[in-house]
Amino acid sequence: MEETSKNKQSSIILALDFPYQGKQERGNLLTKAKNLLDTVSPYICAVKFNHHLTLPLGIFDGVQALVEQAHKRGLLAIMDCKVNDIGNTNNVIAEYYYDAGFDAVIANPFVGLEQGIKPILDVATERHRGVILLAYMSHKGAAEGYGQTIRDAETGVETKQYLAFARKAARWNADGVVVGATVPEKIREIRFVLGEEVPIYSPGVGAQGGSVEDSVKAGARYLIVGREIVHADDPAYRAETLRQKAELAK
Amino acid sequence: MEETSKNKQSSIILALDFPYQGKQERGNLLTKAKNLLDTVSPYICAVKFNHHLTLPLGIFDGVQALVEQAHKRGLLAIMDCKVNDIGNTNNVIAEYYYDAGFDAVIANPFVGLEQGIKPILDVATERHRGVILLAYMSHKGAAEGYGQTIRDAETGVETKQYLAFARKAARWNADGVVVGATVPEKIREIRFVLGEEVPIYSPGVGAQGGSVEDSVKAGARYLIVGREIVHADDPAYRAETLRQKAELAK
Repeated sequence: MEETSKNKQSSIILALDFPYQGKQERGNLLTKAKNLLDTVSPYICAVKFNHHLTLPLGIFDGVQALVEQAHKRGLLAIMDCKVNDIGNTNNVIAEYYYDAGFDAVIANPFVGLEQGIKPILDVATERHRGVILLAYMSHKGAAEGYGQTIRDAETGVETKQYLAFARKAARWNADGVVVGATVPEKIREIRFVLGEEVPIYSPGVGAQGGSVEDSVKAGARYLIVGREIVHADDPAYRAETLRQKAELAK
Repeated sequence: MEETSKNKQSSIILALDFPYQGKQERGNLLTKAKNLLDTVSPYICAVKFNHHLTLPLGIFDGVQALVEQAHKRGLLAIMDCKVNDIGNTNNVIAEYYYDAGFDAVIANPFVGLEQGIKPILDVATERHRGVILLAYMSHKGAAEGYGQTIRDAETGVETKQYLAFARKAARWNADGVVVGATVPEKIREIRFVLGEEVPIYSPGVGAQGGSVEDSVKAGARYLIVGREIVHADDPAYRAETLRQKAELAK
């Protein structure tokens, strides 16, 4: 990821998310996604997919073609499936997404290691792919779960859920953690816990109110941007502007 | 759900999960799933789908046909997507699954209400479908998250995560909660918090070590069974045996 980002001189990840489409409009979705990806690809380092595309298109029909297109443009492809099932199921999910060409999947450490995250880490290691873990999300309700105070099972000391997740991500050798751009103070705290080893991926810039400068200065390595680019009048120009902003803030 | 279960005199929900299939074997998956569903349908009240089928088959290609088949047999269809994204995305996910015919989706209350679970509850109300929330999962790692001690944000009192989830499920008028059959003592505690209003769905019988009798006696209304039936030499016989066991334990 670091290499790709350096090559492209960009730390912007496009979240290729389109609004819900009724049955009649779904036919255009793949073409729209292909066009947007082509327009924006010079200014980004990776593409993040979510169920906005996998559900209407299917992963082996439409989405796999987009993943291949991303790779041809020198971009990495991340599946934002926020896996949080039992290990056996997590393993099956990871296998299918990796089969479709994804370089990394996003998972929720809330399910715990044993029979939870472990089987995903194992298949990732085996297939030389990545696993990125959630630490703090970008929406308001995140405070209820990610922001809650927990009693650490090992130390018996009270701590914040997101700091416990960050420590686990470091211990489990995750390839990155997700922290919302809407909470730069938490990016800073988590950066401190993680050190330089594990990069922070930060969604929520633009439409959700996060700022490129604040997130980068707080320690975010990659910025995930969806609606701000997807719905822009000129998506390429918007992506390039965000890219420059992020480079300047480094 | 209650009506369907009464009509079918069964509280068994089939988890229609097949192991990961490499590219060559995927062609048979839909036929295998159709056959199994037909064989087992007299003994169950609903079918739970997970990514074992949605990823290789696609929801509008293969899975929708299975959902229609389930409905024709008088069964309900639940999508076990364990949704845990930001509200905007959760909404899109729920819309697509409901479009594919699902009667209910499973979501993770860990994302919180505002900009989290709320948009799913809204679309469910609008479309007259269901939302089932996770309270305690059936795998070992569940102890790390679902089993952790948290400080309740409102009362300031220490409580267990799964009890906080159960209280939220009741307050948010969820259509059910999921509690692993592997932890019958937690089914009992959660049953006490929920009262009779919100039914408990209990996965983990058989392959994962949970017992029908213990779960039902502790307060589980529906038993979700996957591998125990799917991999049985005679799936219909196994389903019928489990159905009878559950009826007797009531």
